[in-house]
Amino acid sequence: MKTLIVHGYVLTVDKTFTIIHDGAVCYEDSRIIDIGLTEELLRRHDGAKIIDASKKIVMPGLINTHLHSGLIRGTAEDLKVWEWLALHVDPKHKVLQPEDAYIASKVCYSEALLSGTTTVVDMYRHMDRCADSAEETGIRAVLAPYVGDRPGYDYFEKVDTNERLYLDRHGSADGRVNVWFGMEHLVYCSEEAFRRTAALAEKYDTGIHTHGEESIQMANMIREKYGCAPMQVFYNRGILGPKTLIAHCCWITPYEIEIMRSTGTSIAHCPVSNMKLASGICPVPAALKAGVHVGLGSDGIKENNNVDMFEEMKFAALLQKLGSLDATAMPAEEAIRLATIYGAQAIHMEDQIGSLEVGKKADIVLLDYNNLHMAPHLFGKYENFVPNIVHSANGADVTTVIVNGKTVVEDKKLVGVDVEKLLGEYTAATEALIQRREPYVPDAASINDVVV
Amino acid sequence: MKTLIVHGYVLTVDKTFTIIHDGAVCYEDSRIIDIGLTEELLRRHDGAKIIDASKKIVMPGLINTHLHSGLIRGTAEDLKVWEWLALHVDPKHKVLQPEDAYIASKVCYSEALLSGTTTVVDMYRHMDRCADSAEETGIRAVLAPYVGDRPGYDYFEKVDTNERLYLDRHGSADGRVNVWFGMEHLVYCSEEAFRRTAALAEKYDTGIHTHGEESIQMANMIREKYGCAPMQVFYNRGILGPKTLIAHCCWITPYEIEIMRSTGTSIAHCPVSNMKLASGICPVPAALKAGVHVGLGSDGIKENNNVDMFEEMKFAALLQKLGSLDATAMPAEEAIRLATIYGAQAIHMEDQIGSLEVGKKADIVLLDYNNLHMAPHLFGKYENFVPNIVHSANGADVTTVIVNGKTVVEDKKLVGVDVEKLLGEYTAATEALIQRREPYVPDAASINDVVV
Repeated sequence: MKTLIVHGYVLTVDKTFTIIHDGAVCYEDSRIIDIGLTEELLRRHDGAKIIDASKKIVMPGLINTHLHSGLIRGTAEDLKVWEWLALHVDPKHKVLQPEDAYIASKVCYSEALLSGTTTVVDMYRHMDRCADSAEETGIRAVLAPYVGDRPGYDYFEKVDTNERLYLDRHGSADGRVNVWFGMEHLVYCSEEAFRRTAALAEKYDTGIHTHGEESIQMANMIREKYGCAPMQVFYNRGILGPKTLIAHCCWITPYEIEIMRSTGTSIAHCPVSNMKLASGICPVPAALKAGVHVGLGSDGIKENNNVDMFEEMKFAALLQKLGSLDATAMPAEEAIRLATIYGAQAIHMEDQIGSLEVGKKADIVLLDYNNLHMAPHLFGKYENFVPNIVHSANGADVTTVIVNGKTVVEDKKLVGVDVEKLLGEYTAATEALIQRREPYVPDAASINDVVV
Repeated sequence: MKTLIVHGYVLTVDKTFTIIHDGAVCYEDSRIIDIGLTEELLRRHDGAKIIDASKKIVMPGLINTHLHSGLIRGTAEDLKVWEWLALHVDPKHKVLQPEDAYIASKVCYSEALLSGTTTVVDMYRHMDRCADSAEETGIRAVLAPYVGDRPGYDYFEKVDTNERLYLDRHGSADGRVNVWFGMEHLVYCSEEAFRRTAALAEKYDTGIHTHGEESIQMANMIREKYGCAPMQVFYNRGILGPKTLIAHCCWITPYEIEIMRSTGTSIAHCPVSNMKLASGICPVPAALKAGVHVGLGSDGIKENNNVDMFEEMKFAALLQKLGSLDATAMPAEEAIRLATIYGAQAIHMEDQIGSLEVGKKADIVLLDYNNLHMAPHLFGKYENFVPNIVHSANGADVTTVIVNGKTVVEDKKLVGVDVEKLLGEYTAATEALIQRREPYVPDAASINDVVV
């Protein structure tokens, strides 16, 4: 069965950033089979099911390259990072149950879909239940569990459970679910965990995802302990390569950018999280210029506190402009690429997603522009849709979301998810989690400095 | 006729930041007459018209202390400030007609209301037509025209037309329209214009609004020319005082903060604009600590490109955290105060607006929290509504807006504004404006450096 989206403002994000006025996209099963002018596609695909995209932008689904599903949104705020981890985040991980992971990921994936994200890279626990959520909500998901095994962090997932998840769920849900090897952080993982992760990722030819160089304090502590740049520690431990994605990278130096380029390692850039946790500014233009792939991530709802990738694009552009005191630092086009095709490259799926092109997956978002905050609607020399997508729109303007050829959001509502019921379960699960966590919350005064 | 908002999560933003669960607000005509628990107010105000605020936050209308109505959203992007002004903004001002001002302000005020803003400080041209828009849309507006008279800038408004506007419209629309004296910028205004502005603002006991210390380049040029801090130039020209509001102030030094404090001068802080135009970071916590009043502003749609004050609160909080590399730099509560009570103080209307308190104007916003991105919904020790208002919500969550006791937005729709018609007029007016502007647009190569 063919479906034909017609009369849209089609933003392909292909190599030449082609925009088609009164454009159309045709897909069959999970794949895009034709793109062009509406009148031509109507001729070529007579009998297709029609979706009217008048006064809507038709664009590739957004790719969120760094997310943690979660429950404790808005409960751990305005704290220094180590206090935040020790008082709230780590004790929470300790008591997280599989059913929590299911509800948390179902909410986060639903929220992501509603705001135009079609692919997420999620790092969480009990991720077989996240795979269930991905199956049910219809999102495309890369699952990379929080693995940790060093003393004090051994309540996290293990390399073994990560391999089990890979064997059980990789390629499931019509190929929408991919499993990578995840590592919480250098501080949380033993050298043995690194060694096994690198070996298993190579064995199964899949990705590796971890955090790096988020705060300057941590970057400096690692430099002091290991006598080299933090990225070199990853290099020495064998995890860098063209299928490895490092979140944050706020403090990477030109030397480390070159390590990333030469190994093919990618960055998941999280501007909102990096500002909110006072981490720093990832040198995105320099990394891109060097040839490093950079995607955009929301980070978790405890860091952000939402997963709206339209908001993330605006923050990404503005953070670079501010950081360099140069208003030309990141044009709107580039912010859109970060959230689409660059993100696809960063997770080495650019042959499948990230742009609207024939042969790619039908991961498509319709964004309503027929409203005051996206007006005026100008065509020609002063065409203004691209900057207004980045700087005026937000996820609430998304009306329709298609993933793998299946409509998962229609008229701003999720298809097949009972939001009212989910909201009740989510709040109840969080209340129970917080209660279970209570015995493990340390005194604020007793928090020790982290040991690298 | 009394109206009673019931069953809301009432965020008063009073002196102790009182929050009332299952709270109610009663207003009669334009004033709030009672606040408290729903069951008590239902008893006390039998027969009042009821507005149900179940699963909604009831909060003071947001105050946007710096806005330029406008038409050219998204058409002048990713440029250095002086190129942006010379190539796009100044030529546009030259050909702006009164009817343009009407349509532009009607769109901007409508957009502001839809996203929960009840008071704007607008600097624009032909502002008698902005007063018409304020009357029609129902917003509360401070109008401070763009006055400029130095050679090359004499197409702006004049002090005389500003005085005419004051005499004609100050206090109109049931007191919702206030007229101040506006000055575009030090570079655009003669000493004579400053002298007359100061004298007239004193004569009529009204406010003064201008821009200052937006870019470091301009701040440095002013220092070089005048041999003193830019704020001292304003001081020497006699415009500082408790009814004066300066937009931006990115580069104010402790010395200048003391000048502002001792004169009672206020700041309109515009974080999105300051990031987008690569201006810098206003030292908001230092200014507040010193006792300077600071409000929040969106700046114009050509700078931002929207007027969503929920987004602005998030940027305000995150910009301070990033700028200081300190995650405790601006708690969510403080961001809410900036957009409400602090803004009211900055425009010396704190006895009328900025919080929900008995005797104040009924400028009230209802924000839906019954959605995934504001969940979970926790009460008690881990209550999370306040951070989630700042970091999770956006203007699209606003369902109802009341200004001066009159409902102007209901079920996310403007009351009495035909949005479809307005959208058509707005795009047509912008297209015509751009065409009229064409002869005045200089060659990019011919732009001279600004002369202070």
